[in-house]
Amino acid sequence: MKDPDAMQSGLQLLESADAAYLTTIDGDGFPQTRAMLNLRNSDQFPALSRLFSGLDERFVVYFTTNASSAKIEQIRRNPKVSVYYSIPAEWRGLMLGGVMEIVADSGLKKALWQKGWEMYYPGGDDDPDYAILRLSPMVAKYYHQLVSSVFDLGQKS
Amino acid sequence: MKDPDAMQSGLQLLESADAAYLTTIDGDGFPQTRAMLNLRNSDQFPALSRLFSGLDERFVVYFTTNASSAKIEQIRRNPKVSVYYSIPAEWRGLMLGGVMEIVADSGLKKALWQKGWEMYYPGGDDDPDYAILRLSPMVAKYYHQLVSSVFDLGQKS
Repeated sequence: MKDPDAMQSGLQLLESADAAYLTTIDGDGFPQTRAMLNLRNSDQFPALSRLFSGLDERFVVYFTTNASSAKIEQIRRNPKVSVYYSIPAEWRGLMLGGVMEIVADSGLKKALWQKGWEMYYPGGDDDPDYAILRLSPMVAKYYHQLVSSVFDLGQKS
Repeated sequence: MKDPDAMQSGLQLLESADAAYLTTIDGDGFPQTRAMLNLRNSDQFPALSRLFSGLDERFVVYFTTNASSAKIEQIRRNPKVSVYYSIPAEWRGLMLGGVMEIVADSGLKKALWQKGWEMYYPGGDDDPDYAILRLSPMVAKYYHQLVSSVFDLGQKS
């Protein structure tokens, strides 16, 4: 289905949801979900909006995390993930599904870095424990109340 | 870890989160996440609170869904799931993980039924498309900002 209105609504949700819920699969085959910073939220991270312009149609999303975290180990073993964005009061949701990449790019690390993140990565933007994840999803699914619209985004770029 | 305060905070979150994010694993091994009604939310479903009393320590949760939905097919093939509850503004989260059961119990179906659900199940509380899911989790993980507490709840009861 290629519903331009639903795609636009999905992008608007991506840019306004308070958090992103990332699910990886652990070594025993169980899904593991946790909240992540939604770097695409344009109110929370206005300085990053320009960085993401041009990625809209493919719903590409980035995450920052600790290289030493369990999720990184899970992604190395099995990179299949989902990411969910939600506005519960309106029963709107956006699911992105695909293969997560761990990106080693010092320029991107610097570009994404935000003031205050020394709390997570004491060494700053070149802390070896500061890691970047990238999802160029194969599928996006937008939910609004009882209706859902699926977008096949093809293989990851 | 058995931190009674964290367990109490997790239960309080379970009973106040606006929605539950259920992740199943599809036939290709990809996680699939969607929002579900949080029947444990005591403001949204006050009439169900009594039904759930006594289940607190084990974090047992129920969901209602359409028997014909993709998630039911996914659970039949692979019952390993996660459920996530979140209060994004406070960076609080609760993840439950374990094996989902599909419960065929007409008494429970009637007990859980809420006014207005004819929108989902036109045939009412004995509609064959009205299905109940039950998770007695093996693990609960409570997150608050940078701290997480894991509760091993043992095998499903």
